[in-house]
Amino acid sequence: MLVTDRRQFLKSAALMAGASGVAQSGTDESQRAQWLDTAERLKPRLHATQVAPVSIVKPIADASQFLRWRMERVSPADTLRERVMRRADSVILDFGRHLTGHLEFSIDGEGRGIDAPTRLKLTFGEVAPEVAGPFDPYHGALSRAWLQDEVINIDVLPNTLQLPRRYAFRYVKVEVIDTSPNYAIRLDRVQATALSSAGAEPPPLGKATPELLRQIDAVSIATLRDCMQTVFEDGPKRDRRLWIGDLRLQALTNYATFRNFDLVKRCLYLFAAFPREDGMVSACVFEDPKPYRGHEYIVDYAALYVATVLDYAKASNDWVTARELWPVVQQQMEILERYVRGDGLFAAPAGAWVFIDWNNRLDRTAAMHGVFVYSLRQALALAHKCGAEPQATEYERRFAQMAAAARTAFYDPVLQICVSGPKRQISWATQAWMVLSGIVTKEEGAQAFRAIREIPDAIHPGAPYLYHYVAEAMIACGLKQEALELIESYWGGMVKAGADTFWEVYDPSNAMLSPYNSVLVNSYCHAWSCTPAYLLRR
Amino acid sequence: MLVTDRRQFLKSAALMAGASGVAQSGTDESQRAQWLDTAERLKPRLHATQVAPVSIVKPIADASQFLRWRMERVSPADTLRERVMRRADSVILDFGRHLTGHLEFSIDGEGRGIDAPTRLKLTFGEVAPEVAGPFDPYHGALSRAWLQDEVINIDVLPNTLQLPRRYAFRYVKVEVIDTSPNYAIRLDRVQATALSSAGAEPPPLGKATPELLRQIDAVSIATLRDCMQTVFEDGPKRDRRLWIGDLRLQALTNYATFRNFDLVKRCLYLFAAFPREDGMVSACVFEDPKPYRGHEYIVDYAALYVATVLDYAKASNDWVTARELWPVVQQQMEILERYVRGDGLFAAPAGAWVFIDWNNRLDRTAAMHGVFVYSLRQALALAHKCGAEPQATEYERRFAQMAAAARTAFYDPVLQICVSGPKRQISWATQAWMVLSGIVTKEEGAQAFRAIREIPDAIHPGAPYLYHYVAEAMIACGLKQEALELIESYWGGMVKAGADTFWEVYDPSNAMLSPYNSVLVNSYCHAWSCTPAYLLRR
Repeated sequence: MLVTDRRQFLKSAALMAGASGVAQSGTDESQRAQWLDTAERLKPRLHATQVAPVSIVKPIADASQFLRWRMERVSPADTLRERVMRRADSVILDFGRHLTGHLEFSIDGEGRGIDAPTRLKLTFGEVAPEVAGPFDPYHGALSRAWLQDEVINIDVLPNTLQLPRRYAFRYVKVEVIDTSPNYAIRLDRVQATALSSAGAEPPPLGKATPELLRQIDAVSIATLRDCMQTVFEDGPKRDRRLWIGDLRLQALTNYATFRNFDLVKRCLYLFAAFPREDGMVSACVFEDPKPYRGHEYIVDYAALYVATVLDYAKASNDWVTARELWPVVQQQMEILERYVRGDGLFAAPAGAWVFIDWNNRLDRTAAMHGVFVYSLRQALALAHKCGAEPQATEYERRFAQMAAAARTAFYDPVLQICVSGPKRQISWATQAWMVLSGIVTKEEGAQAFRAIREIPDAIHPGAPYLYHYVAEAMIACGLKQEALELIESYWGGMVKAGADTFWEVYDPSNAMLSPYNSVLVNSYCHAWSCTPAYLLRR
Repeated sequence: MLVTDRRQFLKSAALMAGASGVAQSGTDESQRAQWLDTAERLKPRLHATQVAPVSIVKPIADASQFLRWRMERVSPADTLRERVMRRADSVILDFGRHLTGHLEFSIDGEGRGIDAPTRLKLTFGEVAPEVAGPFDPYHGALSRAWLQDEVINIDVLPNTLQLPRRYAFRYVKVEVIDTSPNYAIRLDRVQATALSSAGAEPPPLGKATPELLRQIDAVSIATLRDCMQTVFEDGPKRDRRLWIGDLRLQALTNYATFRNFDLVKRCLYLFAAFPREDGMVSACVFEDPKPYRGHEYIVDYAALYVATVLDYAKASNDWVTARELWPVVQQQMEILERYVRGDGLFAAPAGAWVFIDWNNRLDRTAAMHGVFVYSLRQALALAHKCGAEPQATEYERRFAQMAAAARTAFYDPVLQICVSGPKRQISWATQAWMVLSGIVTKEEGAQAFRAIREIPDAIHPGAPYLYHYVAEAMIACGLKQEALELIESYWGGMVKAGADTFWEVYDPSNAMLSPYNSVLVNSYCHAWSCTPAYLLRR
């Protein structure tokens, strides 16, 4: 996730500034320093894997392809050294897989005399469109600096270059801006070093699993692998931050695949180490030059921190950590409870950032209520484990009150579906969170999902993050087959469109969808899209 | 010097390939390896001087300026840290002097969140036009890679950057290609490290010297200083090679100023270490990744190697080196003597590269003859010192024959001027070399220089290299005042045009003159222009 709406920021910041008047965090400074220390001690060393390019390829405009380009194989990658390249020549290398890491290559000159530096442009692409055309003029809403290209000047040949920055890519385009009239260059020994904190990959799904599902599972795992660095990044090409919403889904998938518990633990402590003045966890954390909290606060993400702690403790059986983080969990619940109105409905303050999904038309009232009630249930389970019985009692009471209030406010017994907001908007988001929170029964949920399929103008999910919770809710109310079909159609759609890793945004009906006004800056390996491996394997 | 004419290359190469049939070099391989070793042992450690920027400046288009731009001071450089810079903002720093070296700076971000890399473009300029406008589209004949700009992406702020490459500059333009909508940057602690192998600067000329001459002297010294690196480079912005023609003029100026004899000695050995198969020294030598000879052979440069050795021995009194290099000197003379026709006139083979000057209209016959005869005189002096009496006798005989032949062929007793070629072309180059070679008497030379001033369509020098030999010839035939006037008008013209260091090309009547089809790629600190300090001080 990366924020695009500046007005949203400003409102959110103003709100949060107001919130700093509330009671100070229950955690003290020395404790937070200790948590940071714990997080840093858990910082993993990355595994490095050498990856050689497979082919030289050429992008062909192709309207039949979802991304509008296909890659045509020109020759094996080892023919690169036979290419004599001069001004305006270019070549695209295909590494045959997505990776997060570094690039190195050797370069030599030949001709009458190597009498000038070599100026190259290197462009890294996760998908074909990034290397098919030029990046500029760029009209995206996010920084141009996220587009992965470098202009480099090489003074001396022969030379071996190890590019210092990290990239996320499958393709590398090398363009010769200039040599001199007296020499040409040859490139050789191109090699990438793929980095990840994920360990050995889990065995693939059994042969009995349909091929498409096996592919979806493999792409999920590749996505998670390339996002697992020294934190669970949201997307290695861009943003690269640790966000709670993405973390939770990655952690779940990680438990079903790589089972790197320490990385989750590190991330939980990172959030704990940098709360806002009132104790609310920030939506994201930066790692460099040293860890610090992001400037965004997302109401539903703070609530989901609770679930992320519980998921972790259950998966790892590390209840010591859960107990240590209990004050943080309790504090999120305390802060968020203040937004619960007297009638038992959750009402985020105007201007606070409630994410839920990336569909701007979505009325988030019911879904946000659902997330909070869902979190009450996770907090309740944690309270019991942490010996916090007074809180458990309170959460239980609160759950009963809010579930009842929600049924009245959001469940339409005539339509047998959940609605949200003054216009009684029908959305997939609302159904998902009404189910996951336990506000509606399994049967009601199943019926609601059946009903919504017949309502074409119901608000659809805008991105994989919500698709996950929809699939999870379907499974929760017994619609396993429907969940599988959703996975096959949605994530399978990306696989069929050529995804090596799952994308940040995917709308089967709109290939040009970008929350940032440019698909070039979309992330094509994105954490919150990695969950099919979890859904299929659990 | 840098070669621009590819056809010239091809012809030259073909000729030289033919020449490889002649007798092998008198120097053997182990001797050449030893000479390389000597050269490498003399490789200097560079002196580093920290240089802070002086001002923030703004280029103003100004048709009254020779280079069409003037720099307006905006504020002191230390106001830079107060500048908050975002996408499309830029700033130009003026270091107040030309320097060859490195740049470092610190950068920090401020705003809501530093949530994207920073993408900067840095442009280094020796003169205002290089930072006043964009480099592209670039139509110069030399590599675009010589233009000094970098695009850099900085992943983490705050940061301190030390750019790895070396630049030649007075101005640095920093353009912010992008930050993100959420943060801006501030730059601070910008600092350059000026590099040179020149030691302490000589005291300036006395107060009695007219101000303009004092300025010319100072600019000469700055030019030499910034070209003195681990060899005498021809121009630190571009090419950067060691060329014999440039070396000789730098060495002469060095003897009158920095007196770094070892650097000259290193350069002489570098040429000696890499002769062509027949023993001819190449016109230039590259240093990196390890020393190797350039691909160009210039007839007059090979001849001037002789003078460069003699100059060195005289200035340093190091006759041991002269004697060690005597076989190389002798060999140049042997090779070049093959081009002397039976009638005693020097006739370079068709297609061989005879430089003399950068004026394409110049008939080089007489001047080249003059350079060779000049070299005979230097070789004669060396032969005596090296105990090579048979050669001395031969050189003396040859000198007498060729001087006589030249008088007949080139001296027009009616016009009292020297001419060249079938069209009896009158040029400054011809007069200069007829004087320096001793072919005409001082009186004849002085008269010729007086006469040529009255001939407007006489071929003028095309670059400072030949202007030097004209001035030197004027002094040699007693026209000290005229030489001084030439220095004042030509090099003084550059000073008045704002030169901090002397330029590769300067035609007072044509500011847009470039041998490379773009003044942007001209060198504005160029070795062969540094000689006024020598002419004024000797």
